[in-house]
Amino acid sequence: MGTEYLKIKEAKEAKKIIDNLFNELYKIKCEEILLENSYYRITYDNIKSSIAIPPFNKSLKDGFAVKAKDTFGASDDNPKTFKIIDTVEAGSFSEKTLKNGEAIEISTGAPVPKGSDAIAMVEYSEKVQDGPESEVAIYKSVSPSQDIAKKGSDIEKNKPLISAKTKLSPVKIGVLSAQGLNKVKVYKKLEISVISTGNELLTQEDTINYGKIYDINTNTIKNSVISCGCEAKVQGIIKDNYNKLRNKIETSLKTSDIVITSGGTSAGVGDVLKDVIEDIGEVIIHGISIKPGKPTLIGKVNGKLVIGLPGNPVGAIIVFNVFIAPNLRKLVGLNPAAKNKKIRVKLSKRIHSSKGRVQYLLIEIKDNKAYPILKDSGAINALSYAEGYIKVPKSVELIDADEIVEAYLF
Amino acid sequence: MGTEYLKIKEAKEAKKIIDNLFNELYKIKCEEILLENSYYRITYDNIKSSIAIPPFNKSLKDGFAVKAKDTFGASDDNPKTFKIIDTVEAGSFSEKTLKNGEAIEISTGAPVPKGSDAIAMVEYSEKVQDGPESEVAIYKSVSPSQDIAKKGSDIEKNKPLISAKTKLSPVKIGVLSAQGLNKVKVYKKLEISVISTGNELLTQEDTINYGKIYDINTNTIKNSVISCGCEAKVQGIIKDNYNKLRNKIETSLKTSDIVITSGGTSAGVGDVLKDVIEDIGEVIIHGISIKPGKPTLIGKVNGKLVIGLPGNPVGAIIVFNVFIAPNLRKLVGLNPAAKNKKIRVKLSKRIHSSKGRVQYLLIEIKDNKAYPILKDSGAINALSYAEGYIKVPKSVELIDADEIVEAYLF
Repeated sequence: MGTEYLKIKEAKEAKKIIDNLFNELYKIKCEEILLENSYYRITYDNIKSSIAIPPFNKSLKDGFAVKAKDTFGASDDNPKTFKIIDTVEAGSFSEKTLKNGEAIEISTGAPVPKGSDAIAMVEYSEKVQDGPESEVAIYKSVSPSQDIAKKGSDIEKNKPLISAKTKLSPVKIGVLSAQGLNKVKVYKKLEISVISTGNELLTQEDTINYGKIYDINTNTIKNSVISCGCEAKVQGIIKDNYNKLRNKIETSLKTSDIVITSGGTSAGVGDVLKDVIEDIGEVIIHGISIKPGKPTLIGKVNGKLVIGLPGNPVGAIIVFNVFIAPNLRKLVGLNPAAKNKKIRVKLSKRIHSSKGRVQYLLIEIKDNKAYPILKDSGAINALSYAEGYIKVPKSVELIDADEIVEAYLF
Repeated sequence: MGTEYLKIKEAKEAKKIIDNLFNELYKIKCEEILLENSYYRITYDNIKSSIAIPPFNKSLKDGFAVKAKDTFGASDDNPKTFKIIDTVEAGSFSEKTLKNGEAIEISTGAPVPKGSDAIAMVEYSEKVQDGPESEVAIYKSVSPSQDIAKKGSDIEKNKPLISAKTKLSPVKIGVLSAQGLNKVKVYKKLEISVISTGNELLTQEDTINYGKIYDINTNTIKNSVISCGCEAKVQGIIKDNYNKLRNKIETSLKTSDIVITSGGTSAGVGDVLKDVIEDIGEVIIHGISIKPGKPTLIGKVNGKLVIGLPGNPVGAIIVFNVFIAPNLRKLVGLNPAAKNKKIRVKLSKRIHSSKGRVQYLLIEIKDNKAYPILKDSGAINALSYAEGYIKVPKSVELIDADEIVEAYLF
């Protein structure tokens, strides 16, 4: 009994191996999705304008399209009179071409008719007669181009609009909507299967019975995967049974890019996951010299990663955040460092650490200080107020109160 | 022609009226959802622990459950020998009660058998004989409670766990999972219908034709609604037609808490939305003295709000962010101020503003300065790099370069 880690690695080395594995096995992929559903997705390409905005010379006011020079000299005392030959509202257009002395009644947003080069605002006009032969008196002269937004004056055709790797906010989605873009190319989400293992685990639908505990890792890892912009496929709880675990991993690999399990990497009664991965692929790392999180397994099966996180929920979260999350975020176009945001804060009190392996301590942030939550590493309670963690290097045995430490926030 | 705003309000007054309307018409509601799908939802209640964690006295090590006093004096030279009467793995339990001189083989996570009060680690033991009558030699004495996590030592039953108004992160979801919580009460999302109006509007599925433009507001408002933690129901584009708009608003109100339209509030050819709301409810505000965003309508129909945003996309976004978003966020339990985050930055260059109404200027943030995007207010291009806006009070005509301004970020 007791677990033997045959491929144990130092934290730094493990990180390098895992990063390299991700680089080697996974390429960034894109997919086309409906623009309207693209909230917070990441653009894959630089997007150029495909149409000019506005797409036509557009009236900026309600009034009358005229030839500007016909209005020159108009004033309250000396209005100029125009024959109204047509009316054009937003969404329609006039087929007529305007000649000297003619006006076309026009709404904001409507295309400026041929032959006219300015809009005389309705506020400085007065219709003389209604009906087909009506006229309008203009009381103020307008200059050429007045109150017209020229075609392309907002956005020219074929100009850079949104660059690749942009997070699509409502406003950016609006910019692309103006282009009539129905679909947009975005970074494809990785599909990740999540499996919990352990004879002692119950789902939240089960009634508790003696000796069993509720599974935590399915929900934390599923939602951690989501927080990395990936898609999680919950595969349920598997007993510590070689065949069941092997079957579940093999079927999960068929429909996902990565399989993440938890538990089963340091069981006293055996090490089922290690045996399965040895038989269907290759165990790359078995054990990382960190606390908590030592019983971690990294395996490669048919060109895909199988990641065995510790069963201990705190260890599982630390290992996921430190070693896995940055790689996932990179592959879906997110800033790898935005999660686990690093801040520098004072430590609230002296802490001791075990020399020889990197230690991660859950912390709470209060009054701009990091308060270590000194509980045994499996403590769920600690998680309810943990806001992040600090990393104690393996050579450090002691950090004094008020020393500055680097904290990583969840 | 030209729009008359009969119920125009100053920005400050409009904000007060709108906030009061939200308070009067909407109550915070909750709903129960599956815990596993609760990512980033907001807890409605203070949640207490319903079970102790661990739910039983749990072994922290692989080894042998014994009576501690039976091991006293054990050493490498003088091991104590125990009769192994049972084996218990995580997820199961032993029905036996341990007597003096007896041991039960135990795995990490398994319940500590009756009669035993300590775990002797496997590393300091040696099995003497296999089979039903096997014995174990223990080489190191253990003290009472050693390597046992007492029932409730992590979390006692009936203790505060997660407080109301907590955003459910993966870690918090984990804490509730440990309790066997299958569902969780969270703030209910408001359901908001989004309607664009205008004869000139095309959907992104349409081919562009002369005089038409692509609808922007459906997508920006839909996704702005989502960013406020609410659910958006896209109702499509409605022509500037009294009956069609009235029907669409009436049917939308039946299935949503709020209806948001855009356009149709300052059309030259009429003011269809105002007429509809006057007939089926009450127009509370028609026109807000701001730039952009003046043609805004706030109506009340059957105890629900109908919000008419300007057709101009920049105006629509400004009005939504300034007047509507904080109220929506409050009702779904989000921090009203987290969106439109206020920062203080230097202005890059002198700006002029029209006295007499509050003006909102889109800005870009570069080198810790706010760069005003001085474009006509309907400009889509401006939106592609706008990161927020600054508010120029109505009494201010000029702000100098390098003056500190308050900027609100999208």
